[in-house]
Amino acid sequence: MEHMEVRRADGRGAGDLRRVRLERDVMKNALGSCMVEFGDTRVLCAATIEDGLPGWRRASRSGWVTAEYAMLPASTGRRTRREFGQRRGRSQEIERLIGRSLRTATNLRALGEHTVTIDCDVIQADGGTRTAALTGAWVALHDALAAWVEAARIPRIPLVSQVAAVSMGLVDGNVLLDLDYAEDSRAEVDMNLVCTQSREIVEIQGTGERTPFDRAHLDALLDLGFEGIERLIALQNEVTAFRDEA
Amino acid sequence: MEHMEVRRADGRGAGDLRRVRLERDVMKNALGSCMVEFGDTRVLCAATIEDGLPGWRRASRSGWVTAEYAMLPASTGRRTRREFGQRRGRSQEIERLIGRSLRTATNLRALGEHTVTIDCDVIQADGGTRTAALTGAWVALHDALAAWVEAARIPRIPLVSQVAAVSMGLVDGNVLLDLDYAEDSRAEVDMNLVCTQSREIVEIQGTGERTPFDRAHLDALLDLGFEGIERLIALQNEVTAFRDEA
Amino acid sequence: MEHMEVRRADGRGAGDLRRVRLERDVMKNALGSCMVEFGDTRVLCAATIEDGLPGWRRASRSGWVTAEYAMLPASTGRRTRREFGQRRGRSQEIERLIGRSLRTATNLRALGEHTVTIDCDVIQADGGTRTAALTGAWVALHDALAAWVEAARIPRIPLVSQVAAVSMGLVDGNVLLDLDYAEDSRAEVDMNLVCTQSREIVEIQGTGERTPFDRAHLDALLDLGFEGIERLIALQNEVTAFRDEA
Amino acid sequence: MEHMEVRRADGRGAGDLRRVRLERDVMKNALGSCMVEFGDTRVLCAATIEDGLPGWRRASRSGWVTAEYAMLPASTGRRTRREFGQRRGRSQEIERLIGRSLRTATNLRALGEHTVTIDCDVIQADGGTRTAALTGAWVALHDALAAWVEAARIPRIPLVSQVAAVSMGLVDGNVLLDLDYAEDSRAEVDMNLVCTQSREIVEIQGTGERTPFDRAHLDALLDLGFEGIERLIALQNEVTAFRDEA
Amino acid sequence: MEHMEVRRADGRGAGDLRRVRLERDVMKNALGSCMVEFGDTRVLCAATIEDGLPGWRRASRSGWVTAEYAMLPASTGRRTRREFGQRRGRSQEIERLIGRSLRTATNLRALGEHTVTIDCDVIQADGGTRTAALTGAWVALHDALAAWVEAARIPRIPLVSQVAAVSMGLVDGNVLLDLDYAEDSRAEVDMNLVCTQSREIVEIQGTGERTPFDRAHLDALLDLGFEGIERLIALQNEVTAFRDEA
Amino acid sequence: MEHMEVRRADGRGAGDLRRVRLERDVMKNALGSCMVEFGDTRVLCAATIEDGLPGWRRASRSGWVTAEYAMLPASTGRRTRREFGQRRGRSQEIERLIGRSLRTATNLRALGEHTVTIDCDVIQADGGTRTAALTGAWVALHDALAAWVEAARIPRIPLVSQVAAVSMGLVDGNVLLDLDYAEDSRAEVDMNLVCTQSREIVEIQGTGERTPFDRAHLDALLDLGFEGIERLIALQNEVTAFRDEA
Repeated sequence: MEHMEVRRADGRGAGDLRRVRLERDVMKNALGSCMVEFGDTRVLCAATIEDGLPGWRRASRSGWVTAEYAMLPASTGRRTRREFGQRRGRSQEIERLIGRSLRTATNLRALGEHTVTIDCDVIQADGGTRTAALTGAWVALHDALAAWVEAARIPRIPLVSQVAAVSMGLVDGNVLLDLDYAEDSRAEVDMNLVCTQSREIVEIQGTGERTPFDRAHLDALLDLGFEGIERLIALQNEVTAFRDEA
Repeated sequence: MEHMEVRRADGRGAGDLRRVRLERDVMKNALGSCMVEFGDTRVLCAATIEDGLPGWRRASRSGWVTAEYAMLPASTGRRTRREFGQRRGRSQEIERLIGRSLRTATNLRALGEHTVTIDCDVIQADGGTRTAALTGAWVALHDALAAWVEAARIPRIPLVSQVAAVSMGLVDGNVLLDLDYAEDSRAEVDMNLVCTQSREIVEIQGTGERTPFDRAHLDALLDLGFEGIERLIALQNEVTAFRDEA
Repeated sequence: MEHMEVRRADGRGAGDLRRVRLERDVMKNALGSCMVEFGDTRVLCAATIEDGLPGWRRASRSGWVTAEYAMLPASTGRRTRREFGQRRGRSQEIERLIGRSLRTATNLRALGEHTVTIDCDVIQADGGTRTAALTGAWVALHDALAAWVEAARIPRIPLVSQVAAVSMGLVDGNVLLDLDYAEDSRAEVDMNLVCTQSREIVEIQGTGERTPFDRAHLDALLDLGFEGIERLIALQNEVTAFRDEA
Repeated sequence: MEHMEVRRADGRGAGDLRRVRLERDVMKNALGSCMVEFGDTRVLCAATIEDGLPGWRRASRSGWVTAEYAMLPASTGRRTRREFGQRRGRSQEIERLIGRSLRTATNLRALGEHTVTIDCDVIQADGGTRTAALTGAWVALHDALAAWVEAARIPRIPLVSQVAAVSMGLVDGNVLLDLDYAEDSRAEVDMNLVCTQSREIVEIQGTGERTPFDRAHLDALLDLGFEGIERLIALQNEVTAFRDEA
Repeated sequence: MEHMEVRRADGRGAGDLRRVRLERDVMKNALGSCMVEFGDTRVLCAATIEDGLPGWRRASRSGWVTAEYAMLPASTGRRTRREFGQRRGRSQEIERLIGRSLRTATNLRALGEHTVTIDCDVIQADGGTRTAALTGAWVALHDALAAWVEAARIPRIPLVSQVAAVSMGLVDGNVLLDLDYAEDSRAEVDMNLVCTQSREIVEIQGTGERTPFDRAHLDALLDLGFEGIERLIALQNEVTAFRDEA
Repeated sequence: MEHMEVRRADGRGAGDLRRVRLERDVMKNALGSCMVEFGDTRVLCAATIEDGLPGWRRASRSGWVTAEYAMLPASTGRRTRREFGQRRGRSQEIERLIGRSLRTATNLRALGEHTVTIDCDVIQADGGTRTAALTGAWVALHDALAAWVEAARIPRIPLVSQVAAVSMGLVDGNVLLDLDYAEDSRAEVDMNLVCTQSREIVEIQGTGERTPFDRAHLDALLDLGFEGIERLIALQNEVTAFRDEA
């Protein structure tokens, strides 16, 4: 597990993120929006706020944050069919992950009886679409809430923390951070980590489909993950100046 | 109908197009792609080619060109629901229009037993999404076919013509070209024109939902439309150099 | 374009309609109904009026007119599958055309908070089902509204105009009116025209899927279309005596 | 149970059928068709034959007969919604009843590897739509098979029997034949009987939703039913001359 | 028809039921539940009561009883697909039968504005699943209503009768009671009977798909059926002591 | 985190499993079946093997193992709606987890071109349905494969490992093993662990929806989880004697 010696196809070290970009305000009609890039993976995140709550949530009088995730058909190497008719299990799993994580970051009571929807549409897929989507979705959420503060709809941004996500994996026996598609396709172990700015875990998902893994590998993967999250949190903070506001 | 005196909200004259941009090669995984902008309307067009034909088309031994059209939820002022479950009639109508028009432009026999799908995803909607989509879709189609020529899959680009589309309308009694959303919303008459580079009509659709219109207005609308198409065809030609190849 | 010399398979001249019949009151349970025949094409049109409006329309306090279109499975030469599960784009396109056109003919405000649905079910298909449907649908709509006047639900028939529809096409180089299925199948250009009794255009749709067409042909097609509409309007008027009421 | 004294709203006696009409050859494109009327109930039955068998039936090398049943929206007093999306249990139950009964009447082995579909579309509903549909469907099936004999596709009509259907019910304590909608709506017991020309039972369905019934009533209902079937069989035979062929 | 001489594969006589078990209180979360076994056929019946009524029923101010029926995929010899997407006609037919029969047994007005749903899930299928389901469903319904009496939600159990169901059939010319899957698969005639404790018929369904049957056979089948029902009613009464309460 | 002092509602210590039962051969028609109970949570697991592979898998010539998961409507305190029409994201997520984990345990190449489906139907839900389901599913899979060995369809059981699953959580600040529904509903952190008999991780999922958690808590949760898995593996081994075979 001396992973620092590894040289990856794109020249990165084992613990390096791909080039990450967070471009805000890319959609005129969305309250908050962010084009996020993790290398060649590009996801368009857009936040809209609607009055009212889903029926089952109405009694709570607290707000709701939810996400929708879809891939443009030409975002993948081989054209992906649109999800008319039947949603794919994978898409729903990702939506649930993003929704849960953003709700952890939000003071739903302070949000009041409003529903924020974060649409995450994958423009280009090269591995790590869910982690990129979540990292950008937080920025879109922040900006939509900030717009509502400006519009005097709420007194202050009801966010309790930042959240960002990154993937880790065991590839050819090496522990790597932020897998691209080629790495992900042959990974023995695939893991996703969602954390806050204080290194607290919001979500951890790890799968050894090809081969199970022991606790020592789990620890090594987590070490890398925490480091990656820290850099993503810093980038988010750079574009939104969230921590300074808080 | 001395429409040239009109001054529109964005400063355009009655017969002016909005600023039009055709940016190619915007998606790494698509064989051909084009981000098309008609003012604030932005549509991402991506062409992919698959071997084989839809079942009902198999006997023909000719190729097939089809289109899919969708709007990102946050592309509109008020969030549009995704078309899971039930396709919207409007989307299917636009897909059928784009597919038909591109097939008219293509030598399907020369294409051989392949299916080209043009995905048109509206990133931002400000009126004229179907005309922008078709104009960009032709560029994506051209580039995908050119890539296949380069890959020696086909001897030459099997296109018999260029096609572009523009909208016209009667707004507050004025005959206008290329309506934006605000104009379109209050138009008495709404028309779309698809033409080739030689001013031949591929498709004409005109609706007087608010009020029917007489033949003199039809003629005035068509005059504007043909001029607009000519400029779009020139722009397409500029980015693809299609006419020089031919 | 001296189309008058053409002799068609059924003996008609280029500018002749097929035998058209409009039989009223063919369904005991519908408020208004009309079996319309354009030659062998037969469509059963039935109008029902329900209190209330679709949800999205409620704020308007104006009425609504909508249409549904379907083909009986055995109406076509080869059995057509029923549209359980997934609506066909073509059917929805026709429904939208009929609904839009009838709304143009109706004073929705005077109709009040009621929804009129015109069901158009194709019993036998031999080309021109959408134009026959629309022509018959207007009669069914008229009769349903007349029945409501008689029932003292509304003071007078809230129709502002008559609308009828006809198809035209370019077949083997000839400009023809009211195509039957055999002509339609090999038409180079296919066009539908919806007009009022004062030759005003409600809807125009023209497609050159096989080959694009120039403006001279468009004009010749329109000339024929206006003549055809005039005769259909006269027939509608004959059975409903609408113009005399007005 | 001295039911013969009963006088019904339309003047019929307890054991009388409504006026029954079987009009053949009403659809140009169907191989066999029949408009059947039981009083104001009108059902259009159309038979088409396709080569091949449904997948699960292929191994049998025997033919298949199936039915589809639907109501036009305006066939009922209050508009019935079309079954897009979700089929109604009632419609499927009726389809299954008609299909089963017609298969009993058919020599499927002699039919060979073909599928006959009988479409039963209710134009006007006034009670007894399923029994009218089945009675007319047999005529359409007969005629389609006769057309195939004429076309030399099969040597002789592969029917082993006639089948017809009628409803019976207990209404206000009276045992009645062939209920119309008003009677059916308040019936204590509702029964349907499908029989052959030799009084053999193909299907019997009886329901006492309002109140259960004893065996004496069952017997009285069956007595009426057998008589009604006999008359329907005679009418079928009159229009098709089936028994003379056999 | 001297059916008493017949010896069946499992040793039963023609008029014998399989071993029947009714085990109550098998589901902790259901208000009433019953695992019913007719030989190897096992169905889990569970009754839940919800406040309120389905929309179309609201005006009645009476209660509603409905059923849902499904088979576990592994309940059958060859795995049955789950009914995601499209309900099977057969399942809906069975649900409707069970719902209708239980409503006949219930005083809906006394139930008040509540909806009882009886879920019948087939754990193991060996013929007669619908008759077993109905027989067990009545027990689950009884127990749920008894629990509501105990909870002081209603003053007394609003049941007007017991209902049970059994199948009969003509197999190799023999009239048999309570067919198992092997018998059912080759039956010439298949019949189901639902009766009350006083031998009144709630529902009778008989089908001669392979061959129609005469009235003498119908009578013999009914004789057997009434005897079977009597024994099932006694068993229901044994476990619930319903008649003693009444 | 001295969790051993905790006393839970049912008397368990923090690190205790509920009473676990694995009952085999509970379904006559399934090749392998297991009723698994974790306290009041009961899941019926049934394995069936079909020849052939899903389309997309065919090229691989290796076998496939997949799972389906559903809850009986009355398995929960409040009736759960059946998943007709639209699958729930949660169910698909659980199916994917179970399928992935069982595939890790299986030598798919040795299985050959067969598809094993494990149906997991929740009879009673009291927390931990997915971990109970997976633990029982492995037993059903084992038994189905053993049956195929006995039937001489494959030379030996193609399993490479045992897998079992357990839940852990942080409840009121306490680290607990195998949460029941009441504990799960108020847990701050919810985690599921799938491991093999050699303490290797197949899947780890942890969520801090109410509050994120630090790495020390993660470690404490994992410690408990590994102990629980060890006991479940021993129980599986007891009923199947797998390790002795291997």
